[in-house]
Amino acid sequence: MLVIGVRTSIFQTKDAGKPYIVSQPRSSQIVHKVVEGGFFVTFEGPEGSGKSTQISLLGDALTTQGIDVLRLREPGGTPLGEGLRALILASEAPDSMAAETELLLFGASRAQLMHQRILPHLAKGGVVLCDRFADSTTAYQGYGRSLDAEFIERMHEFTVQGRWPDLTFLLDLTVEEGFQRVFLRNGNKEHADRIEAESRAFHERVRKGYLDLARIHPKRFRVLDATRSTETIHKRIMEMLTDAIG
Amino acid sequence: MLVIGVRTSIFQTKDAGKPYIVSQPRSSQIVHKVVEGGFFVTFEGPEGSGKSTQISLLGDALTTQGIDVLRLREPGGTPLGEGLRALILASEAPDSMAAETELLLFGASRAQLMHQRILPHLAKGGVVLCDRFADSTTAYQGYGRSLDAEFIERMHEFTVQGRWPDLTFLLDLTVEEGFQRVFLRNGNKEHADRIEAESRAFHERVRKGYLDLARIHPKRFRVLDATRSTETIHKRIMEMLTDAIG
Repeated sequence: MLVIGVRTSIFQTKDAGKPYIVSQPRSSQIVHKVVEGGFFVTFEGPEGSGKSTQISLLGDALTTQGIDVLRLREPGGTPLGEGLRALILASEAPDSMAAETELLLFGASRAQLMHQRILPHLAKGGVVLCDRFADSTTAYQGYGRSLDAEFIERMHEFTVQGRWPDLTFLLDLTVEEGFQRVFLRNGNKEHADRIEAESRAFHERVRKGYLDLARIHPKRFRVLDATRSTETIHKRIMEMLTDAIG
Repeated sequence: MLVIGVRTSIFQTKDAGKPYIVSQPRSSQIVHKVVEGGFFVTFEGPEGSGKSTQISLLGDALTTQGIDVLRLREPGGTPLGEGLRALILASEAPDSMAAETELLLFGASRAQLMHQRILPHLAKGGVVLCDRFADSTTAYQGYGRSLDAEFIERMHEFTVQGRWPDLTFLLDLTVEEGFQRVFLRNGNKEHADRIEAESRAFHERVRKGYLDLARIHPKRFRVLDATRSTETIHKRIMEMLTDAIG
């Protein structure tokens, strides 16, 4: 049994370069489990749902316990990916980039991130926390922009290379609530990037996409109510992660 | 009957904004044909095969006849595409970019080119001459890098959107001859870009890919011996284009 949790004393030892996580329950009986093949966690949800805050809290908690954590964001995470991110999010007219182009740029950025960062870190037995991943593409480009769902699935197979996340936290928020949060954060609408500037109907389709994915992949997805307090959500994430690894 | 040829006097008239090509044979009998939906010509072959020279000659010949010609190159042809071209061809270590990333960047650049330049120009009834297109991806990434051929086909369907070239000129050259030409052109190997710097076996696979494609799509492909003189090849291209349109 492996325990990762805010109420449990956890430390780590090393064996042949592979980190493993050891928990010491109150009984003082040491139990541990090697994280073979690493552990891959993704965070999904709309802008304003608190993904980056939760990644920061979880990353800090795991790092404090000596776990080798890599935090990434999509698109980005590599020099090439950051360049593509800037291209994709550039505040141009929404129709200047073809929807097909945008989809393939997300795929290109993801393929590079898998190759250069995610797979090597998982191979070392580390933990990867990624802000958005393939599910974002299905939700935003597939559901949101109504692009060919079957092609998107084929692209995922091509870029993810069989290494899907072990766990995906979906921070669910109504479109109305998400808009209010982004508005509060940005101060005014001028700062909203190209994707945030999409229509309300678009964001409704995105939310439906996320919830459909969670239903289709119940083993991988954990849906969280993003209106709960930051601390409450963090605690649930720690518990769910513990359950998933244990 | 439409005649386009170096020996034929050709001029153009306009009708309702749609350019069409009119030929006036020696008999002085005027024949013409509207180029409905435009005419899309691509040039394929290895570096050093003379694609850009032939595009220049053909483009000039058609422009002189008053035809609305758009010349493009892949990757590139749009501001986004030129940015991606620089990324793809950057002289880095050959393994710094994942093969999957490269493939998807070519796809992204092509999707944008179709959307922003090719389809609008064809819709006006114009002629598009493109230096490389989807066949390059099949030959270089599919045959050359042995990437998933079925996914590449699916990506082509997604990016080409049913508007395949009407005619594709393959300037065929042995790998040995191609290498010699690139070497002569560049002066030294340091100027060879990342893709030209690939191994000989890679370029052999690319050539096989092109010749396979020409066999699979005999209606669209015209294979030309790129060791013939520039003028001879240009003349054949004019004849073949005339036949294809006529």
